[in-house]
Amino acid sequence: MAEAEAATRARARGGRRARQALRSAPQFDMLPGLERNLPLCEPMSEEQIRRIDDASMAILEEVGCVFRDPIALADWRRAGADVRGDRVHLDRGLVRDLIATIPERFTYLARDPAKSVALGGRSAIFVPMTGAPYLRDLEDRRRLPTLEDLAMFHKLAHMAPALHSSAHHIVEPMDIPVSHRHLHITYSSIRHSDKTFMGMTTSPKNAEDVLDMAAILFGADTLERQPVITGNCNGNSPLVWDETMLGAMRAFCRRNQPVLCSPFVLGGANTPASMVPTVVQLNAEALAGLAYTQVIRKGCPAVYGHYLATVSMASGAPMAGTPEISLMNFMIGQMARFYGVPWRTSNTLGGAKVLDAQAGYESAATLSAVLHAGANYIWHSAGWNEAGMHCSVAKFMVDAEQCAMGHRMASGLRWDDFDEALAAVRDVGPGGHYLGHPHTQANFQRAFFMPKLFDNNAVEQWQAEGAIETPERALRLARKWLGDYEAPPLDEAIDEALKDYIARRSREIPAVDELNQQH
Amino acid sequence: MAEAEAATRARARGGRRARQALRSAPQFDMLPGLERNLPLCEPMSEEQIRRIDDASMAILEEVGCVFRDPIALADWRRAGADVRGDRVHLDRGLVRDLIATIPERFTYLARDPAKSVALGGRSAIFVPMTGAPYLRDLEDRRRLPTLEDLAMFHKLAHMAPALHSSAHHIVEPMDIPVSHRHLHITYSSIRHSDKTFMGMTTSPKNAEDVLDMAAILFGADTLERQPVITGNCNGNSPLVWDETMLGAMRAFCRRNQPVLCSPFVLGGANTPASMVPTVVQLNAEALAGLAYTQVIRKGCPAVYGHYLATVSMASGAPMAGTPEISLMNFMIGQMARFYGVPWRTSNTLGGAKVLDAQAGYESAATLSAVLHAGANYIWHSAGWNEAGMHCSVAKFMVDAEQCAMGHRMASGLRWDDFDEALAAVRDVGPGGHYLGHPHTQANFQRAFFMPKLFDNNAVEQWQAEGAIETPERALRLARKWLGDYEAPPLDEAIDEALKDYIARRSREIPAVDELNQQH
Repeated sequence: MAEAEAATRARARGGRRARQALRSAPQFDMLPGLERNLPLCEPMSEEQIRRIDDASMAILEEVGCVFRDPIALADWRRAGADVRGDRVHLDRGLVRDLIATIPERFTYLARDPAKSVALGGRSAIFVPMTGAPYLRDLEDRRRLPTLEDLAMFHKLAHMAPALHSSAHHIVEPMDIPVSHRHLHITYSSIRHSDKTFMGMTTSPKNAEDVLDMAAILFGADTLERQPVITGNCNGNSPLVWDETMLGAMRAFCRRNQPVLCSPFVLGGANTPASMVPTVVQLNAEALAGLAYTQVIRKGCPAVYGHYLATVSMASGAPMAGTPEISLMNFMIGQMARFYGVPWRTSNTLGGAKVLDAQAGYESAATLSAVLHAGANYIWHSAGWNEAGMHCSVAKFMVDAEQCAMGHRMASGLRWDDFDEALAAVRDVGPGGHYLGHPHTQANFQRAFFMPKLFDNNAVEQWQAEGAIETPERALRLARKWLGDYEAPPLDEAIDEALKDYIARRSREIPAVDELNQQH
Repeated sequence: MAEAEAATRARARGGRRARQALRSAPQFDMLPGLERNLPLCEPMSEEQIRRIDDASMAILEEVGCVFRDPIALADWRRAGADVRGDRVHLDRGLVRDLIATIPERFTYLARDPAKSVALGGRSAIFVPMTGAPYLRDLEDRRRLPTLEDLAMFHKLAHMAPALHSSAHHIVEPMDIPVSHRHLHITYSSIRHSDKTFMGMTTSPKNAEDVLDMAAILFGADTLERQPVITGNCNGNSPLVWDETMLGAMRAFCRRNQPVLCSPFVLGGANTPASMVPTVVQLNAEALAGLAYTQVIRKGCPAVYGHYLATVSMASGAPMAGTPEISLMNFMIGQMARFYGVPWRTSNTLGGAKVLDAQAGYESAATLSAVLHAGANYIWHSAGWNEAGMHCSVAKFMVDAEQCAMGHRMASGLRWDDFDEALAAVRDVGPGGHYLGHPHTQANFQRAFFMPKLFDNNAVEQWQAEGAIETPERALRLARKWLGDYEAPPLDEAIDEALKDYIARRSREIPAVDELNQQH
């Protein structure tokens, strides 16, 4: 009884003045990019890292990696690889020489330069989920999304302090023909937020369109100098890179823009049923993709990526938040740092159908793991549920607040008021209390994170307020935020040029609704 | 779309044979005590650890700690402390000399010796929550608990593989007079499980009764040689230890049984509104308690404890799963290791009123933090919700499975099938799949943790099965387990002796229903 009851009694002592101060307007200022200041979880010794590296390199040399793309095969021949049919055998010396020119760290330029964010080393960013074919909307109904729904998510991403990017197709705008979507998705990312964003890689030509739009926004010469947009290219595990992805990769690299080289791993299905060897294979696949970025353009930024779930052998379903995924993230972080390349992981993955306890456990376990792993590009950080089949507005809000908490945790300890606070201990003395002390009054706002979306009141108060559970609390906050939304400024001439580009390309590209995406 | 859709398509490929194998009987064998094999999260430098130590020692020397207990004050005088009124000023040399005799590591003897577990260093155990004045029962109804409800939780604790203890009053048996409860609680812990357990510290005399019962079970001479039971003594922050707790502490230490010396900290209310100084105060309080255990009996085992929440200045409510609590756990772990003493923390704390997403986020964030912090005695590991005001059967089940996942994660990497699994990579080759490979068939059961309580099926299947959310899934499993429960053997003569003891003490102690507990 002791601890539970005492905790509850303490509630009564909350300071009235403090409560009033906290009822102020919501705060939408973006947190700076995370500068991690916590030691990393590194389970492998230097010798074990070299063992993984050696095994991955041996696979690339002896088994090889398939590039299903004539241009890439020709590129590889010119680069000196041993190409046999569509299988490229990569010598470890060649791989090391190529990846050596990938920048260890770079800074994304955002439209609002104050929202530019560094990536690599200790620097990390939180990026919302993307790619959901359904959403759970502001009424928590599961349905097909529209371009308007996508705009709503871009607005929420713009306002959420801990999200550093508006990403791209958080949800699929199903009311737009498939062949035109990339244009409208990119415009929505740009129009509704001035944070950095992502570019579609659904085909090489789509990628070119997206990069043209980025060039309209920032100027083509800016792209030459600095990353402004991110593409993602998935590998097909085991050991295959396909034509669509490689073509999109070329579009990005040629303009000096980074891609996430992301093997798509379902542990146990397309990798061995074993944790460490799964990392070996994933590492080989990522290295093959990373090396090719430097064949395309030496010195181009690139990011070590992966999508990683383990597969339930009981049902065939992908799982998330499991211990092996955490451990593999720790290992992959060590490998990326060994190669000196920034790395991407996935946050808040999970398979729950609603924002229930399962979703909470899975998402928090994942967030914690990726922070201790030291990931740089922390993708799928808000909204993901149902194995990515829907983006939930409610979950988007909760996850975004969780990222703010993760940001605080990974920023580490503050020692700046150490002596002052200890003076308060002497003032208050044994048996006293701190709520009225000037140090408390001056510091309570920043001392301890107070989540807005979690209810810690007594059950009686919670019942009197309608017994509202997490999803509805989050949806109420989302509605409030959307009422407060202000579009960031966008130069009118640029806006016109973007619209003209979309209009022209929409005339040129037949409006097709079939999914011709390979990934 | 890429990652979400591909993940979903993968589902179809699950192996039928694997599924059948997994439909076997549930497994109730206790996991061995956790032997942590992950590097720790240690945010403080050696110099910062010394700075905390120095500040805590200065508080004990200059401010002192109040012991509201004449026996303790006399003990302290004899031990050479500077006692002024009820305030004991402790010289750092004295504190260091005293805590030096606390064992760094010890092993609890369980009634089933195979379930004995080590504590300290890398060795850790998961212990269920205790102290809930309400429960959410097998029908998810919130109500007052009975002795029968407590028995149910002891049975579930007995069966849950990752729980290493049956604890004591997981819920308060409200149908038993307060003054007799400790007898029936202790009997229930013993009767329904053969794992280690906890002893009530609600008064010095109650503690003596509990220790008498432990002596009946194990033999008085066994207690002299080895820990068999754990008491918890809360300090009253700031800087007070009270008579009830100190009396109970004396009862345990005199019989050579360990107590958790746990300052009760509500950060910002009874400590400064600042993270690092809160640890300084908590550390001073824990040291005072630990030092006193060695005044009572030199060499007696003792555990550095704490109950730690931060207080929302907006509502006065205790919070959990916040970044500062994680960071303080990392720091406290470093301090306990600096002093060479095993340490206790709290797991799965949270303030949700139901097992909703909030409960999941809070609990998983806490579990992860305590594992990375390297805690030894991981208390409140199953069932806690509503700031400890109720124990939830559903959450008990989910938390227990989460502890199994945490156990797996903190056990680290396995390299034993490295070469064999890499041979499978060569067999399968680019573009192949692993599900039919002999290595997969031989290893899938142990390769990736498959949570039973999380649904990762497609939404259509989930709906067809009744759209069951996490709480109901967990309650169904709890009902199934209780149907499978088998009581562990208990020597009949010992059982009779325990019952006789309870009967005698129940006659001797007036049946009082008032809460006269000070903590």
